[in-house]
Amino acid sequence: MASDGFRPLDEKYLLEYIKSTPDLAEKLGNRFDDLQIKEVGDGNLNFVYIVVGPAGSFVIKQALPYIRCIGESWPMAKERAYFEARTLREHRRLCPDHTPEVYHFDHKMCLIGMRYIEPPHIILRKGLIAGNEYPLLAEHISDYMAKTLFFTSLLYLTTTEHKRAVAEFCGNVELCRLTEQVIFSDPYKVSQYNHWTSPYLDSDAEAVRQDNTLKLEVAELKSKFCERTQALIHGDLHTGSVMVTSNSTQVIDPEFAFYAPMGFDIGAFIGNLILAYFAQDGHANEGNDRKAYKLWILKTIEETWNLFHKKFTALWDEHKDGPGEVYLPEIYNNAELQLLVKQKYMKDLFHDSLGYGAAKMIRRIVGVAHVEDFESITEPEKRATCERQALNFAKTLLKERRKFESISEVTSAMQQLQS
Amino acid sequence: MASDGFRPLDEKYLLEYIKSTPDLAEKLGNRFDDLQIKEVGDGNLNFVYIVVGPAGSFVIKQALPYIRCIGESWPMAKERAYFEARTLREHRRLCPDHTPEVYHFDHKMCLIGMRYIEPPHIILRKGLIAGNEYPLLAEHISDYMAKTLFFTSLLYLTTTEHKRAVAEFCGNVELCRLTEQVIFSDPYKVSQYNHWTSPYLDSDAEAVRQDNTLKLEVAELKSKFCERTQALIHGDLHTGSVMVTSNSTQVIDPEFAFYAPMGFDIGAFIGNLILAYFAQDGHANEGNDRKAYKLWILKTIEETWNLFHKKFTALWDEHKDGPGEVYLPEIYNNAELQLLVKQKYMKDLFHDSLGYGAAKMIRRIVGVAHVEDFESITEPEKRATCERQALNFAKTLLKERRKFESISEVTSAMQQLQS
Repeated sequence: MASDGFRPLDEKYLLEYIKSTPDLAEKLGNRFDDLQIKEVGDGNLNFVYIVVGPAGSFVIKQALPYIRCIGESWPMAKERAYFEARTLREHRRLCPDHTPEVYHFDHKMCLIGMRYIEPPHIILRKGLIAGNEYPLLAEHISDYMAKTLFFTSLLYLTTTEHKRAVAEFCGNVELCRLTEQVIFSDPYKVSQYNHWTSPYLDSDAEAVRQDNTLKLEVAELKSKFCERTQALIHGDLHTGSVMVTSNSTQVIDPEFAFYAPMGFDIGAFIGNLILAYFAQDGHANEGNDRKAYKLWILKTIEETWNLFHKKFTALWDEHKDGPGEVYLPEIYNNAELQLLVKQKYMKDLFHDSLGYGAAKMIRRIVGVAHVEDFESITEPEKRATCERQALNFAKTLLKERRKFESISEVTSAMQQLQS
Repeated sequence: MASDGFRPLDEKYLLEYIKSTPDLAEKLGNRFDDLQIKEVGDGNLNFVYIVVGPAGSFVIKQALPYIRCIGESWPMAKERAYFEARTLREHRRLCPDHTPEVYHFDHKMCLIGMRYIEPPHIILRKGLIAGNEYPLLAEHISDYMAKTLFFTSLLYLTTTEHKRAVAEFCGNVELCRLTEQVIFSDPYKVSQYNHWTSPYLDSDAEAVRQDNTLKLEVAELKSKFCERTQALIHGDLHTGSVMVTSNSTQVIDPEFAFYAPMGFDIGAFIGNLILAYFAQDGHANEGNDRKAYKLWILKTIEETWNLFHKKFTALWDEHKDGPGEVYLPEIYNNAELQLLVKQKYMKDLFHDSLGYGAAKMIRRIVGVAHVEDFESITEPEKRATCERQALNFAKTLLKERRKFESISEVTSAMQQLQS
């Protein structure tokens, strides 16, 4: 064990650790005879063990001090485990239906023990690739986003509470820097980490690096990401951070959490649904042309924003006399003004969301980390065709986002691109 | 003395304190026989003693745990002294020509020992009331704003340095809250602290409280003030926080400092010059119609912004390959793009500055704390006429700020209002 008390897990040490940790041992009913332990970390940054016994189960997640897929050459603050556990607990308080429970947190070991989100839950991204419909997905994720974002913003918090939380989450700076680099910088310059479906997209990637208008817009989004402490965001809310069944939606992995623009979360989710949409043609086959499924994705994109809008503004109405200090009821004291204020706020948030969603799409096509939606299309030329459509749509969305007045205009534009 | 080590100063204890504090005693050459000690705090929050001896001098400023003019009923974190000393030292490092030196800081006593800014220096506001021209004022204040704002922004700092500083200054939250209340809230609602030149401005004050468009714009400025950590701002950069002679400009009193929009400082200074302009007719007499002086104020407003623009963008050019991470040279890699990026940034900053300047004007006419520029106009009707012009101009500026493309359009509009 290192002098700081950190020791990377292996299966043998994990068992010792569980036995000597009452919070965890009790979850298993103190029965260690028939334990099944499986390492499933397919992410880039952590060990993830599923532990299932005859009387209970949990997941153990340990943050490693480097990015796992690249190795020790890319060090990464393991302190992120603290912010992940802190955020999971905060989000569970605000939205228990869609946030798994944390049973145990060990700061020195950078180790979280939490609910095992059992089968038939699967990662949403895999469900979207398989063509599964999730009828409650938009309802659930809009609930999660509305509650976690509203209650951590100045619409609900006092300045004192807000600044205290902002100060604390400034400590997660290493993860913010990683986001800045991989989302807002690398795709727009030559970087050793960038890759794309070559040679098909060589000129597309080059065009991104030469696009002054695009870079101008990205600069604004990057500045806002670094400077604007609007709410406690998940920070990585793509479809790989959501586990689903037909009637359950659980959001995991908020290790990138900090106080930042709300649109970054909303955009991450919607942007990844758009990627899933443009990947569908690559998954179509004779048995399933995916046309109906694409319509379901479009509907889910629309419902996600529209339900979020409805729920978020409902929370605002409900708490307009609450502790939040930006819109004091004595000032915003008539129905017309309250409506105006909300319309302005939600319009700005919508455009922010489209901008961040587009930036997250672009980086998944020409940046370091790609998505399985496209990667699982084995034929490169077919994959490149899907990716190019998504990339072109994202570029338009980023540059023209302020011209969209509703989410249905966005989904219409997606369909037109393919007609 | 209280258990926390804090004890309010009086003249006798101050002398003991100086004798037992080497940093201060040495400044006086350890000669305490012929000391002149004068309490001059005309502010609202502090004791200020000037100490002059035969071999040296300094000022002692002690933060009190309440707002002095209102009394102990309005408590105020004396921790602000720490942030004032911290900011004075940081700003002196960045702009030594226009920031007084701190000799001594006592955290427990909330006490700063600093340079005595000697006569003929006077408070700029008093100079503007007297009708004095300061030919170097715009040159100096633009230098101060360009350096302190540029070097504490993400145009120069790394994200790591920036977030560390942001977290620290979140501790100055009590002073942020005071600003929120007196600038962005109280003037727009009924508040026991508000006052104005009554009865002349009764309906004007009422109109401010009924103006939906104005309140919509103020909400945006307030949100940005609370959320956007753009740079380490002075936080109270009005003409009462600047001491001048014809060839020296010294900025004092940054106790409201925190990471916030740059436009708040620029707007504070320009807004207070605009107040000074509209007050001139109240100071005109047979010997001096103040017409030439008003032109000097207009010229100083124009030069302040134009020189700031020039110096700030020059610093940006000079440090474009520096540590700042928002506009990486590998991305912003051609002259056209660099120009576009700067134009966009400076245009947004200009409009922010006009908005914050206008908000600061409004609160000085219908809020709790007024300015001597108007208060020294003894005849109420005449004062009200000046104040109404300033108030109407501020309302236009706040609502229409995005239509102004240059500072000369602002000064033209000021002149038109009076023609």
